[in-house]
Amino acid sequence: MSYSTNMRFRLPALAIGLEILIIILFGIFVRYDTHNLTDPHNNSTSGYSQFLSLYPLFQDVHVMIFVGFGFLMTFLKRYGFSSVGINMLIAALGLQWGILMQGFWHLHDGKIEVDILKMINADFSTATVLISFGAVLGKTSPVQMLFMAIIEIAVFACNEHLAGYLQASDIGASMTIHTFGAYFGLAAAVVLYRPSLKNGHDNEGSVYHSDLFAMIGTLFLWMFWPSFNSAIADHGINQQMAIINTYFSLAASVLTAYAVSSLVEHKGKLDMVHIQNATLAGGVAVGTCADMNIGPFGAMIIGFTAGIISTIGFKYLTPFLSAKLHIQDTCGVHNLHGLPGILGGLAGIVAAAIGAKEGCSPVMQGAALAATLGISVVGGTLTGFILKLPFWGQPPDPNCYDDSIYWEVPLEEPEQEHQYQDEHGKIKSDA
Amino acid sequence: MSYSTNMRFRLPALAIGLEILIIILFGIFVRYDTHNLTDPHNNSTSGYSQFLSLYPLFQDVHVMIFVGFGFLMTFLKRYGFSSVGINMLIAALGLQWGILMQGFWHLHDGKIEVDILKMINADFSTATVLISFGAVLGKTSPVQMLFMAIIEIAVFACNEHLAGYLQASDIGASMTIHTFGAYFGLAAAVVLYRPSLKNGHDNEGSVYHSDLFAMIGTLFLWMFWPSFNSAIADHGINQQMAIINTYFSLAASVLTAYAVSSLVEHKGKLDMVHIQNATLAGGVAVGTCADMNIGPFGAMIIGFTAGIISTIGFKYLTPFLSAKLHIQDTCGVHNLHGLPGILGGLAGIVAAAIGAKEGCSPVMQGAALAATLGISVVGGTLTGFILKLPFWGQPPDPNCYDDSIYWEVPLEEPEQEHQYQDEHGKIKSDA
Amino acid sequence: MSYSTNMRFRLPALAIGLEILIIILFGIFVRYDTHNLTDPHNNSTSGYSQFLSLYPLFQDVHVMIFVGFGFLMTFLKRYGFSSVGINMLIAALGLQWGILMQGFWHLHDGKIEVDILKMINADFSTATVLISFGAVLGKTSPVQMLFMAIIEIAVFACNEHLAGYLQASDIGASMTIHTFGAYFGLAAAVVLYRPSLKNGHDNEGSVYHSDLFAMIGTLFLWMFWPSFNSAIADHGINQQMAIINTYFSLAASVLTAYAVSSLVEHKGKLDMVHIQNATLAGGVAVGTCADMNIGPFGAMIIGFTAGIISTIGFKYLTPFLSAKLHIQDTCGVHNLHGLPGILGGLAGIVAAAIGAKEGCSPVMQGAALAATLGISVVGGTLTGFILKLPFWGQPPDPNCYDDSIYWEVPLEEPEQEHQYQDEHGKIKSDA
Repeated sequence: MSYSTNMRFRLPALAIGLEILIIILFGIFVRYDTHNLTDPHNNSTSGYSQFLSLYPLFQDVHVMIFVGFGFLMTFLKRYGFSSVGINMLIAALGLQWGILMQGFWHLHDGKIEVDILKMINADFSTATVLISFGAVLGKTSPVQMLFMAIIEIAVFACNEHLAGYLQASDIGASMTIHTFGAYFGLAAAVVLYRPSLKNGHDNEGSVYHSDLFAMIGTLFLWMFWPSFNSAIADHGINQQMAIINTYFSLAASVLTAYAVSSLVEHKGKLDMVHIQNATLAGGVAVGTCADMNIGPFGAMIIGFTAGIISTIGFKYLTPFLSAKLHIQDTCGVHNLHGLPGILGGLAGIVAAAIGAKEGCSPVMQGAALAATLGISVVGGTLTGFILKLPFWGQPPDPNCYDDSIYWEVPLEEPEQEHQYQDEHGKIKSDA
Repeated sequence: MSYSTNMRFRLPALAIGLEILIIILFGIFVRYDTHNLTDPHNNSTSGYSQFLSLYPLFQDVHVMIFVGFGFLMTFLKRYGFSSVGINMLIAALGLQWGILMQGFWHLHDGKIEVDILKMINADFSTATVLISFGAVLGKTSPVQMLFMAIIEIAVFACNEHLAGYLQASDIGASMTIHTFGAYFGLAAAVVLYRPSLKNGHDNEGSVYHSDLFAMIGTLFLWMFWPSFNSAIADHGINQQMAIINTYFSLAASVLTAYAVSSLVEHKGKLDMVHIQNATLAGGVAVGTCADMNIGPFGAMIIGFTAGIISTIGFKYLTPFLSAKLHIQDTCGVHNLHGLPGILGGLAGIVAAAIGAKEGCSPVMQGAALAATLGISVVGGTLTGFILKLPFWGQPPDPNCYDDSIYWEVPLEEPEQEHQYQDEHGKIKSDA
Repeated sequence: MSYSTNMRFRLPALAIGLEILIIILFGIFVRYDTHNLTDPHNNSTSGYSQFLSLYPLFQDVHVMIFVGFGFLMTFLKRYGFSSVGINMLIAALGLQWGILMQGFWHLHDGKIEVDILKMINADFSTATVLISFGAVLGKTSPVQMLFMAIIEIAVFACNEHLAGYLQASDIGASMTIHTFGAYFGLAAAVVLYRPSLKNGHDNEGSVYHSDLFAMIGTLFLWMFWPSFNSAIADHGINQQMAIINTYFSLAASVLTAYAVSSLVEHKGKLDMVHIQNATLAGGVAVGTCADMNIGPFGAMIIGFTAGIISTIGFKYLTPFLSAKLHIQDTCGVHNLHGLPGILGGLAGIVAAAIGAKEGCSPVMQGAALAATLGISVVGGTLTGFILKLPFWGQPPDPNCYDDSIYWEVPLEEPEQEHQYQDEHGKIKSDA
């Protein structure tokens, strides 16, 4: 791989070109939704009142996307700038692109009318790319990630529309976001397989403070997950159940994640990788049936199971997949989003079968899960082949997981010399 | 102390056993609150509308519990994983347990009906344990903390019920949470006294970045404290006053905390311990009378006083308690929660006496404060004796305040060697 | 400069004196706003319902002030305590002072009646000082900053009142906060010019983790900026447009900030300074016309332009201003707040001219911008001369950008020795 990793021209041209294209499309297709806004004093749950009452949930989701995903990936010792910085770049592009890709399926008079639900959904659409980003983290260039965002969000919007067409219920998107994002990213990772990294890489570990930064991401994801799973739910009892179910499922998955981490680790110690990730599995897995009448204890059983599966996945499955199936999954998204996402899809089938939500059919739930798996794997594989083209500035193997290839990086430690002022008033140091 | 600190089996068995017990109890006793939810378009301040309008305040409290308390305790240089991680474990268990312990006092048809107020109260109940955690931080095992959570929340729910029975007003819980949590933890700390730590421990200090991590905790606690003190207040003017009073009390305590820190420290310098903690004392101390008509200036007088008392407590009282009374209070919870909590209780007595809230009696306020002090000290002492049993895996003295006894800990610094690819495509390093 | 930098007495006397003065003024002038609160079940958009519906937006702004501004400035390797700590001190004083300074222009029966809008505006008023703080960061003492806060907020309240008198529209305060704060601070920086720093200072750079801390600030500012620009907007479509416009403007400025950063930096690499700051320029620049009917694409054009201007400013203008005009702008506030603020003011003139908001006159918009520039420069210059007096404890040149002059600072690194317990039970270390 002797191609240059210099981003100059490639990144500016792509970013500015895409932004200009998006602005033109917005100029043609996008306008404010002004329905139900004629009377600002009308406090019904539509229109203005809905905007403000859902705005806090939107902001919680917004924090999950930018701080949650961004900092969760800062666990790598030398890759924090890219994790939080490229996360921001992907999401800022993705939310604009998501408005268009999702909006084209729901035009009013040929226009996309932006309201709070469209903004929430735009943030959702970026989540799929950020999940996939976790699978290829450290092994891709910013230009590759912008391309992946453009393709993946377009495919996501189609798959989501298909799930809606099937009348499948997936309020917290265990299937359409988590399963989709994970298998899309993993399929791309297979194509982008790097043999020389199969025994790991010196940059791949964490340092003490990078693990603490990652906990910022974990906690904001964990706390605001009830908003993620309820933001677009039907108002009233469904939305309320989505919040309550997610709250309890997450709590249960914390207990089992800690338990299994201690059980499988050397000397019964806890492993930060498990704590940062598997504690969130309850939020993923309860997604599909969050707004169904499964009872708080039903939600807790889902979270309980998810925490176990996820931790075991990190401990045993990820090394296996890497060694045997050429799947190099940097952040272990298979364990946080893939397996718990499938668990969520399966739970949705069971919940539909026992009648936990009116109008839900277990067959259609299953069809949506299968379609999601198929479309994400095919889409990710094709995307992987595009990203494998040699001119996107991807890092050579020795420079993987290293910010300094795309970022100006300061020295790690402050210099310890002492300064003084000389007779001419200049600052000097004795180093 | 030659007992093993290996958590394998002990921690998994306890965590999974408790979670299964809780799921069973939830299956029997807990269901959604569906009152007032028949009409989702009904926007009265009960039912659905209440759920969504209080949800942002719940989320603020949630952030205080998980990010606020968690990061506030990361100031120790080698104990960040435990601070933020065990905080999360305690809180995830505690909020489930709190639903049950508080709910058993308020059954409807033999059931606990979960609504947003019960979720807020569940988070509140975990706060008591997290405060007590601060007193014994670095000297206990995760298993001990799970036990403490189970016992303390049960006792807390009884004491809180008693305060309600006495018709004492304590909207921001200066007494029932802060005073209770502090003295419960301090009583346990006395029982768990470790003579060899009386001259301090090399791990007990902070490093530069650990102090910055702690400020994340401080600021989220500080900003969202108005939500903590108002979340369960009566709607209308009382809730509004609780927000306003807390906002101004906190602002005043910042000014006096900085002032006194500079006054008592070497060369007039500021001490991060004071800034991280005493700036919050205004939130604690205004809690009891937050929803009373004490006037913004009345709230500021309370915060002004609390900032002074708290900072002086850190500087002079904590060393004295450690040296003379065998109270080793790792985070100084006596100064942040104990003293300001009592100040809050006393302020409530005065406010009741001057008629700042209808129906409040100074005698009953005093009775609630006295009951809280008595019950917390007795409960904490008994808990301390249980935790002193030698088989909970507590750390030996030299390993106190050290994550590595319960956690896989990465090397502190990234390795500085450079990598290259050899002729066979393998990554090598020149270190 | 042989004057002492010891803050003892100066800082405590000033902080406590100001707090006592403020409490007295609050006792005389400030009371709760109880209008429209007689019926707590009345859910109209005034009174109680307004309080709770705007409270989440208030909290977003609150997070921007304390976490956003505070952590954004922690990028300096040795100045994190001061950045986040003095930011907190300024803001806690400023919000109390802001209630008074703004409230004196809007008395009811001789009283200032505190409601949620007054609390939002109080937080806003502190933003001006925090922006100015960025210009003089590292070169001033806490006492100087308290003085600056007192003066600047008083001048800000007058200028804001003048803008209102001119019937200029500036909902997100591109002019009255960002332009004002930037040029006030820059004018003061000119007066406080330190010739010996003209070639930089060894402490002025960042380290790896300090840049990550700064990203916490960046992201919370970025995410919550829609709340900043909409919190005090008219309810209904105007508030909704303010949220939507800001959301899209910010997203567009991210794309151009990354693009231009890569374009102008060595080898096409990204520079953290640009990412931390210029990504926010879209929020600043769309402020004035956020609530106007400029269309989502109009907002994106503003953000697009702002991201470019801001990044170019950091790269080329800041070094020029420092070398040629004696403007030492530590955080580059001219590029984040000054230039994008003026761009916002100009965009407001254009938007008014094309009739994007009823009742807006381009002439009056221009007058408000000109007045803001004039008043901020004059006010900042005069304040600079006051702050230049030699007895405020300002740091000597070699100690600039160094926490240890005003803070107790721990050692940077944990000691690596191992501890053991000797035969007498004492903890010893083998270091």
